[in-house]
Amino acid sequence: MSQKGILRPGHVCIRVMDMNQAVKHYTDHLGLIETDRDDQGRVYLKGWDEYDWFSVVLRETQEAGMDFMAFKVRDRVALDSLEKDLKAFGCTVERLPAGELKHCGERVRFDSPAGHYFELYADKDYYGNEVGITNPEAFVDGIKGMGTHRFDHCLLYGDELDGSVKLFRDVLGFDITERVLDGDVMVGAFMACSNKAHDVVIIRHPEPGKLHHVSFLLDSWEEVLRAGDIISKYDLALDIGPTRHGITRGKSIYFFDPSGNRNEIFAGGSTWYPDHPTVTWNAEKLGKAIFYHDRQLNENFLSVVT
Amino acid sequence: MSQKGILRPGHVCIRVMDMNQAVKHYTDHLGLIETDRDDQGRVYLKGWDEYDWFSVVLRETQEAGMDFMAFKVRDRVALDSLEKDLKAFGCTVERLPAGELKHCGERVRFDSPAGHYFELYADKDYYGNEVGITNPEAFVDGIKGMGTHRFDHCLLYGDELDGSVKLFRDVLGFDITERVLDGDVMVGAFMACSNKAHDVVIIRHPEPGKLHHVSFLLDSWEEVLRAGDIISKYDLALDIGPTRHGITRGKSIYFFDPSGNRNEIFAGGSTWYPDHPTVTWNAEKLGKAIFYHDRQLNENFLSVVT
Amino acid sequence: MSQKGILRPGHVCIRVMDMNQAVKHYTDHLGLIETDRDDQGRVYLKGWDEYDWFSVVLRETQEAGMDFMAFKVRDRVALDSLEKDLKAFGCTVERLPAGELKHCGERVRFDSPAGHYFELYADKDYYGNEVGITNPEAFVDGIKGMGTHRFDHCLLYGDELDGSVKLFRDVLGFDITERVLDGDVMVGAFMACSNKAHDVVIIRHPEPGKLHHVSFLLDSWEEVLRAGDIISKYDLALDIGPTRHGITRGKSIYFFDPSGNRNEIFAGGSTWYPDHPTVTWNAEKLGKAIFYHDRQLNENFLSVVT
Amino acid sequence: MSQKGILRPGHVCIRVMDMNQAVKHYTDHLGLIETDRDDQGRVYLKGWDEYDWFSVVLRETQEAGMDFMAFKVRDRVALDSLEKDLKAFGCTVERLPAGELKHCGERVRFDSPAGHYFELYADKDYYGNEVGITNPEAFVDGIKGMGTHRFDHCLLYGDELDGSVKLFRDVLGFDITERVLDGDVMVGAFMACSNKAHDVVIIRHPEPGKLHHVSFLLDSWEEVLRAGDIISKYDLALDIGPTRHGITRGKSIYFFDPSGNRNEIFAGGSTWYPDHPTVTWNAEKLGKAIFYHDRQLNENFLSVVT
Repeated sequence: MSQKGILRPGHVCIRVMDMNQAVKHYTDHLGLIETDRDDQGRVYLKGWDEYDWFSVVLRETQEAGMDFMAFKVRDRVALDSLEKDLKAFGCTVERLPAGELKHCGERVRFDSPAGHYFELYADKDYYGNEVGITNPEAFVDGIKGMGTHRFDHCLLYGDELDGSVKLFRDVLGFDITERVLDGDVMVGAFMACSNKAHDVVIIRHPEPGKLHHVSFLLDSWEEVLRAGDIISKYDLALDIGPTRHGITRGKSIYFFDPSGNRNEIFAGGSTWYPDHPTVTWNAEKLGKAIFYHDRQLNENFLSVVT
Repeated sequence: MSQKGILRPGHVCIRVMDMNQAVKHYTDHLGLIETDRDDQGRVYLKGWDEYDWFSVVLRETQEAGMDFMAFKVRDRVALDSLEKDLKAFGCTVERLPAGELKHCGERVRFDSPAGHYFELYADKDYYGNEVGITNPEAFVDGIKGMGTHRFDHCLLYGDELDGSVKLFRDVLGFDITERVLDGDVMVGAFMACSNKAHDVVIIRHPEPGKLHHVSFLLDSWEEVLRAGDIISKYDLALDIGPTRHGITRGKSIYFFDPSGNRNEIFAGGSTWYPDHPTVTWNAEKLGKAIFYHDRQLNENFLSVVT
Repeated sequence: MSQKGILRPGHVCIRVMDMNQAVKHYTDHLGLIETDRDDQGRVYLKGWDEYDWFSVVLRETQEAGMDFMAFKVRDRVALDSLEKDLKAFGCTVERLPAGELKHCGERVRFDSPAGHYFELYADKDYYGNEVGITNPEAFVDGIKGMGTHRFDHCLLYGDELDGSVKLFRDVLGFDITERVLDGDVMVGAFMACSNKAHDVVIIRHPEPGKLHHVSFLLDSWEEVLRAGDIISKYDLALDIGPTRHGITRGKSIYFFDPSGNRNEIFAGGSTWYPDHPTVTWNAEKLGKAIFYHDRQLNENFLSVVT
Repeated sequence: MSQKGILRPGHVCIRVMDMNQAVKHYTDHLGLIETDRDDQGRVYLKGWDEYDWFSVVLRETQEAGMDFMAFKVRDRVALDSLEKDLKAFGCTVERLPAGELKHCGERVRFDSPAGHYFELYADKDYYGNEVGITNPEAFVDGIKGMGTHRFDHCLLYGDELDGSVKLFRDVLGFDITERVLDGDVMVGAFMACSNKAHDVVIIRHPEPGKLHHVSFLLDSWEEVLRAGDIISKYDLALDIGPTRHGITRGKSIYFFDPSGNRNEIFAGGSTWYPDHPTVTWNAEKLGKAIFYHDRQLNENFLSVVT
């Protein structure tokens, strides 16, 4: 494939306030698999169809939110090159040694105008997915809860949207797949480093560095229903759904982990190619853009972030 | 996005023996949209969610099969560079002028070891999809028949498999996502230039230059059922399905156009990243690899090509 | 089959305030088929999989709501017998002549304690469904909008719930499949004359004779999504959904016709047999009972009736 | 409800040749729940959404097949009355004492012209379904394998079809929902005692008393796919599917238990009311009637019975 630089969202480090509750939530209900813990008490998780050792790291602390989101790059050459570009852009860049997160190689951490920390890395230990790579079964049974396939994307809220968009587009090579305009002002940017509808989204917001949601991939609208049923049966805090998004066309449910971090499960979504036009949404159509069926936003969705 | 060279399968030129029947098949039943015809009588078609002017060209002649399959590349720089590499590899390369296919820029046509003709191009006129790019609806209704979203991939049969794989991998930058081995001999290569499970597949076969099937994308297992129902209601020639593939995990039906060219409709399929391991299937598991439920191949499927 | 008396909800007469808008709504959007009009200007409609001439009658007037809901009985013997029982119960009973509604035989109309008018009839002209009865196709394409299969049930609000329940259970032979209790007081009764989860529902409410919604049957959760998409694309007034009910387990969307009558599209739902226990919901669980995912009722849903 | 006589297929006694293998098949793969065993070594099973103590009985012996299929009737009055009618029809009728099958009341066993044994019973102990009847969850997770909801119907092969049809229709009150005609000769009768598309089916066949398949209910086309995936993953013997039937419109897969008894899992299917016309299939359309997509019968399907 011709993906030369950044491959995909590789992991997200989520702050939780009670590790036991959080692990139960992300394993029993979302269906992630716990793959390791470290000396700091951080817990490593992955979806059943991911090959690398982890895609979610939980860290227990006093305040919910996101410590950082990381992207895997193709190789160390790309890592070095992107590091140089990030410095040239003006980011504060830090190299974290291999092993600082178990099973992960060196990470290049950088700040961003909208106040979020991101990382790049080229190496992570191979764990394997749940069906293997020699004559594999075409599906997996026995996965818990919603049966999350993989970590998909993050949607972030922050103040300097334009700067963060410039960083992702000009330095990291992301495309803007869809955008929301309030008059001439961009208030939301959906960005992809792949053929997906979005790998990271940033929304203009007064406070910097906020997490709106972490999204996980399912396979179908029927799996979305099942996720909704599990949310109700196990009394998880629903935000909204099941519904479809106007933006991306994806099918979705939003709900909260026990610390108040918003989760999404997501299925479908349009296909992106770099020669496609960016889809534009006007702010007055934002209701339909976000919740295609309701066509109106709930206050909760707009204001609750961690 | 970091796709720098080849973006996707851009069009396929299918030979048909009765144009009226063929157009009816590809529009009324598959749901493609006719977008133009040219002086030579060729008919141009596209799926409802494709932006470019066409992705299928039908040419009436005495014998069914595929004239050529084309890939869109990112820009003219990439086109020129790839042309040079193709020549260096030893391909016979021809530049076709802009407009030779209506709405399409210059095309670089080349032969391949397994006997197929492929093309690269950087420019095609923008037609737009059926929902638009400003506050678009999240779905489309009113599309005919199976409602094909887009042209997805071709599966080709040919003799010099190793050479064609080398060409796609080393020159064009494709990855081998899955492969079939008979002992140590590769007998099938599933290759991607994107995050899809496959963009082109080549299977070892005594005769060069054969077409096994042209595949079109649907959105869900329920759309696959509907496609099967339409095949029956309108008495199209079914090959096999609905079923799931072991290879790619996709859901599928095979059937034939009135000239005997095999079509597939396809939904789902695993996600590919360049750091993923190639999945290997042993020839003795080929039944399960191809038809996950039946676990045995039908003679028709193995031998009927155009 | 051993259904001896009442077979099913046979038709509902809905009052609308603008006939043109209403016909457009029920045909283009819900996908009902217009089968006739009469001298009074009433319009007759049916779902594609119903055999009888109509199941919905629209009547234009100043105020929205339901004129009456009718049940088809097995034959005239059953009709006469039930008429006697209704009179014995104390209903005001009226015989309407054959042809008063076109294509319909004599109807026995009666009032009910909660203030609604119902009818029984044994004969209606045969129209046929859209696939026929000799070597029929297994599905239908080309139906408009949501593609409603059939009229399913009504949910009614009224004051004398206990009396209406007694009427349906003791006189008409319905079973109570599910019920809602507020302490010891029944506040809602889901009742079936068939193996369905409900054929008519009555909810305790201060005002008599109110319509909460008329429900139409779809086949699957994916058809429910499509219905939601159509609601949004054509800007119909959504109430809530797509979602699942706790009661009946059905999948559902509520929305409004142009006159403000609430419609539901419904798929799935549990199977009822007369030896099954009645499922009981406590009022404090009513949120989950009605909207399984949200687990809370919206004010609109509780109070808006016609 | 007005079901006065026979309610539904209540249980089937299947002969198996290796009990351990059979129990593993029906529990781990089909997802039935083992509820008891008796002194004779018979094993009792039920689907998760059935209330009565069992719906499947497995008996180990030398030859596969069906010992008997039983229908639950509304009450003992109906049982006595139907017993009288069966004798008058000429059946050999036997009363089996309560407890001969554990948890089951007295059974009226009778032979039939096509050579099968059937039973009627009015009482069976209440076991409860897996979600309960007070504020129940709307779905169940944690069920094994295919997650069979309930025993649905049997399809039987036998010689005196006309006699058996007469027995079911005239004595037991079943309706013929669909039928297959070879010229003027009925070769297959689909019969219902409910609103289902079929509760029992009998096909004309040279040998009497044969079992073609026992069918179990699933909820959706996606659950049918999952069942197909489980068949492949656990290497069960597939007959055909996933596919749709022309008859009943149901979605289906056929496969075999370890003793060679054919199983079906089934979802959907049209709704029956006693005033509906019988659907007629001509024998020359039998392929489409049975396998709507393939439109041809496989020899296996026609000839392998137990």
